[in-house]
Amino acid sequence: MRIALDAMGGDHAPAEVVRGAVESAREHKIEVVLVGQQEVIKPQIGLYDQTGLTLNIVDASQVVEMGEHPAMATRQKRDSSIVVGMNLLKEGKVSAFVSAGNSGAVMAAALLILGRLEKIERPAIGTVFPTSSGKAFLLDVGANADCKPAHLVQFAHMGSLYMEKVFGIERPRVALLSNGEEETKGNQLVLEAHQLLKKSNINFIGNIEGKDMPKGGADVVVCDGFTGNVVVKVTEGLSEMLFESLRQALTRQLHHRVAASILRPAFSDVRKQLDYTEYGGAPLLGVNGVVIIAHGRSDAKAIKNALSAAKQAVEQDMLTALKSEVAH
Amino acid sequence: MRIALDAMGGDHAPAEVVRGAVESAREHKIEVVLVGQQEVIKPQIGLYDQTGLTLNIVDASQVVEMGEHPAMATRQKRDSSIVVGMNLLKEGKVSAFVSAGNSGAVMAAALLILGRLEKIERPAIGTVFPTSSGKAFLLDVGANADCKPAHLVQFAHMGSLYMEKVFGIERPRVALLSNGEEETKGNQLVLEAHQLLKKSNINFIGNIEGKDMPKGGADVVVCDGFTGNVVVKVTEGLSEMLFESLRQALTRQLHHRVAASILRPAFSDVRKQLDYTEYGGAPLLGVNGVVIIAHGRSDAKAIKNALSAAKQAVEQDMLTALKSEVAH
Repeated sequence: MRIALDAMGGDHAPAEVVRGAVESAREHKIEVVLVGQQEVIKPQIGLYDQTGLTLNIVDASQVVEMGEHPAMATRQKRDSSIVVGMNLLKEGKVSAFVSAGNSGAVMAAALLILGRLEKIERPAIGTVFPTSSGKAFLLDVGANADCKPAHLVQFAHMGSLYMEKVFGIERPRVALLSNGEEETKGNQLVLEAHQLLKKSNINFIGNIEGKDMPKGGADVVVCDGFTGNVVVKVTEGLSEMLFESLRQALTRQLHHRVAASILRPAFSDVRKQLDYTEYGGAPLLGVNGVVIIAHGRSDAKAIKNALSAAKQAVEQDMLTALKSEVAH
Repeated sequence: MRIALDAMGGDHAPAEVVRGAVESAREHKIEVVLVGQQEVIKPQIGLYDQTGLTLNIVDASQVVEMGEHPAMATRQKRDSSIVVGMNLLKEGKVSAFVSAGNSGAVMAAALLILGRLEKIERPAIGTVFPTSSGKAFLLDVGANADCKPAHLVQFAHMGSLYMEKVFGIERPRVALLSNGEEETKGNQLVLEAHQLLKKSNINFIGNIEGKDMPKGGADVVVCDGFTGNVVVKVTEGLSEMLFESLRQALTRQLHHRVAASILRPAFSDVRKQLDYTEYGGAPLLGVNGVVIIAHGRSDAKAIKNALSAAKQAVEQDMLTALKSEVAH
């Protein structure tokens, strides 16, 4: 299987991206096509032993920066790693495209070049989040700030299928994020979506409150992209603050420092459990191709896990399943 | 100063509520009027030394349960602790009312009995949350699931004044919760509210992302009640999960258990920092009276801090300030 990877995208590109590609090629037995400036990528690949690996470079002279206007950058930088990578996917030269670059531009390019799946009005970005019993999937986390009830139903279909195909969860429990469990709770959007979901063939378990998400109360949690984005970022900020507070509290006194050093492995286990890099990026669902958006701060491990998620989605033929699911 | 307290409200009523009242009367030199079933409250008060304290009981025979329909309960249970307490406030027999009971019923009773402040279309519930540099105020956290841009501007005014009067923060920095810092980011509601806030006399610093809230990027964060409620509950769930994961990781091995026991005080410092009970309940802003809604899970300390916030709001004459602020 051949997967294209945006070698120029992300805060730690190209070094960490290339390292992730090398490790992934070795571990997951995939061919990685690194898309970007050849003269930058080549020396990075040269740092590793490539015996038995298939790593190709497809040259792309331009780079879409993180702050650039997504649609504009996509239209103007036709030789950027994002546009070139997406075209490889469109032309069937690769089976999936992974990028840690400007996520708005990845989305714009996907819409422009791949197009939407039939009957999906709005593609959504999903993200896997840790729960005390494993993991769950939240969508939309940023593609659509304003949604209609029917969009949330489409998100529910796509999220359910993703968890089933990529993580092997049978008949995932789908919930609607709300400000109360009762079906009378919610804003207008949620109230209407609730009624539509009840009538659908989705395994809809009702509303879920924010406090029950980390407890694993649902396998798929659906919300509009504004709420989802806020949830993801609050989670990020809170985890950071918490570990920083702990670090400070635990190093204030010498005997604490000694005790804390003994516990370091246990702490890092917990951090790892909460670490987004463990969960393989955020799929862009609803476009006509397998596209995974990795976090801008991705390190090699995050890239490797995003490539693994892409591989899984391709092997399980998620796209065909999605098309047939949505057609019904 | 005399403050009414719903002795029947909350998961730990009446025992913890009465204990909080006793401690508050002692520490803050306030007269607490305990509202509820006399035969239940009296034995609880009897457990404490009341020398020098003024603790009164006003009998109310009914109790609004947590699951009851707010508006219905308010109309039907005219002799409930919530309705009786709110009437004491309306009649000027007390300066504030505090309840850890059914928050919807407290809000419904406040609207029905006290009414709204002039020019405030929608009262909002605010909550103080911890930041790495101190504390900030988030509103609305649940009173209004659907909002209009003008409502958010009113929330901004009220939140700003609350932080100034109750916590002594001069010219509080007010931000709008959004999915990006740029003013082009947000859903339709946020985009429009942003433009209104820019033109107002509020110290508006622009949009804030969820990840910057815990860092203390703003003193007041404004959002609709659906988003605010989700944020508060995700925070609650995540903190719980995190400490539970840490507890498990730290007790898995004997030498970890020993080290963890040394660190217990440091851990509890951090938990305390994140503990809602430290921050004195959630004011219901925009009604014609000082009403503080305490968390349903309030213990004595939470009740004490809610009473303290009520005292502060009364002493600083928050209500008069709010009326004159809103009039402009």
